[in-house]
Amino acid sequence: MSADPIQKIAAELSRLPGIGQKSAQRLAYHIASMPEEQVHSLASALWNGRKSIRQCPVCFNYTEDDLCPICADESRDNGQICVVREARDAAAIERMRDFKGRYHVLGGTLSPLNGIGPDDLRIKELIGRLSDPGIKEVIIATNPDIEGEATASYLARLIKPMGVRVTRIAHGVPVGSDLEYADEVTLSKALEGRREM
Amino acid sequence: MSADPIQKIAAELSRLPGIGQKSAQRLAYHIASMPEEQVHSLASALWNGRKSIRQCPVCFNYTEDDLCPICADESRDNGQICVVREARDAAAIERMRDFKGRYHVLGGTLSPLNGIGPDDLRIKELIGRLSDPGIKEVIIATNPDIEGEATASYLARLIKPMGVRVTRIAHGVPVGSDLEYADEVTLSKALEGRREM
Repeated sequence: MSADPIQKIAAELSRLPGIGQKSAQRLAYHIASMPEEQVHSLASALWNGRKSIRQCPVCFNYTEDDLCPICADESRDNGQICVVREARDAAAIERMRDFKGRYHVLGGTLSPLNGIGPDDLRIKELIGRLSDPGIKEVIIATNPDIEGEATASYLARLIKPMGVRVTRIAHGVPVGSDLEYADEVTLSKALEGRREM
Repeated sequence: MSADPIQKIAAELSRLPGIGQKSAQRLAYHIASMPEEQVHSLASALWNGRKSIRQCPVCFNYTEDDLCPICADESRDNGQICVVREARDAAAIERMRDFKGRYHVLGGTLSPLNGIGPDDLRIKELIGRLSDPGIKEVIIATNPDIEGEATASYLARLIKPMGVRVTRIAHGVPVGSDLEYADEVTLSKALEGRREM
């Protein structure tokens, strides 16, 4: 019954994050029913896309060219580096169109339990970039979770002695959310970080 | 920022059912980070898989060969045809390893609102198969929803006059479920279909 190619498609799809056995099956049957040219365009976007993607040697963002579009953009502010865990976090900040500095993609966060230490992240490369005297501020935008916070404090301890300002993105209640449903830690951070109006 | 190939991958993925913009983005970034050979194996499973899949000319299941493995299997019972909406429904029944007859994939269910009438389904082909005097029973296993029921009654009215027994899969409370959460229609069907113990 289970025509072999369908099972093979399902097996490959189920290796992707967030796609379980059942949805992989569903998707595989859907792909079997799709017009050939649509499947071709999907498969070639995956393969040609992956082949053309490299890492920017400066900030470790994804790029098709030698430098990523942001590092190559001369109009951006050299004085600020925003440190993120993954390239997709930089993409999220870019979507807001507010930040005009540069990025640095760590490639993860410190996680001693998973054996991820400073040498497994692109921290040495970040420190290397700070030798440029034009850099005034490092904004740490790792996730507001335990590992993200630990990574942020580690970086702050490392960078501050170099005379560069280190800042952390604000914690607080998300815009549009309901106070009633905010957890206590977020609420207490929101109170702590209150501002004059 | 948004390296173009990543957006292209995300756009292709978001055309698949059940994959929204956000998960397509997430998957695309994951694919950018995957080893090239894994992406190659995914892309080629999709494309080579799709290319090798055809429809069985007898039951309209998916197959790599001329006939699907079930139609080609001489040990199966020619007397029973189980009618399903999609190939994946036949796969679900096969997983149970209980049914030993043949299948017929309708390719949909009657849905006047969506403009799907009898001629859009493989009903003519099903009737054609019933000219074989060996066929004793048609089991209708369309979904227990409005369209599935309408299709089942339509088929029953069509087939019964040909002297072939037509049955419908049982409706009732799913095994392992909680009566408290069963909806009223299911519960009333379960009561209606009660059996001696």
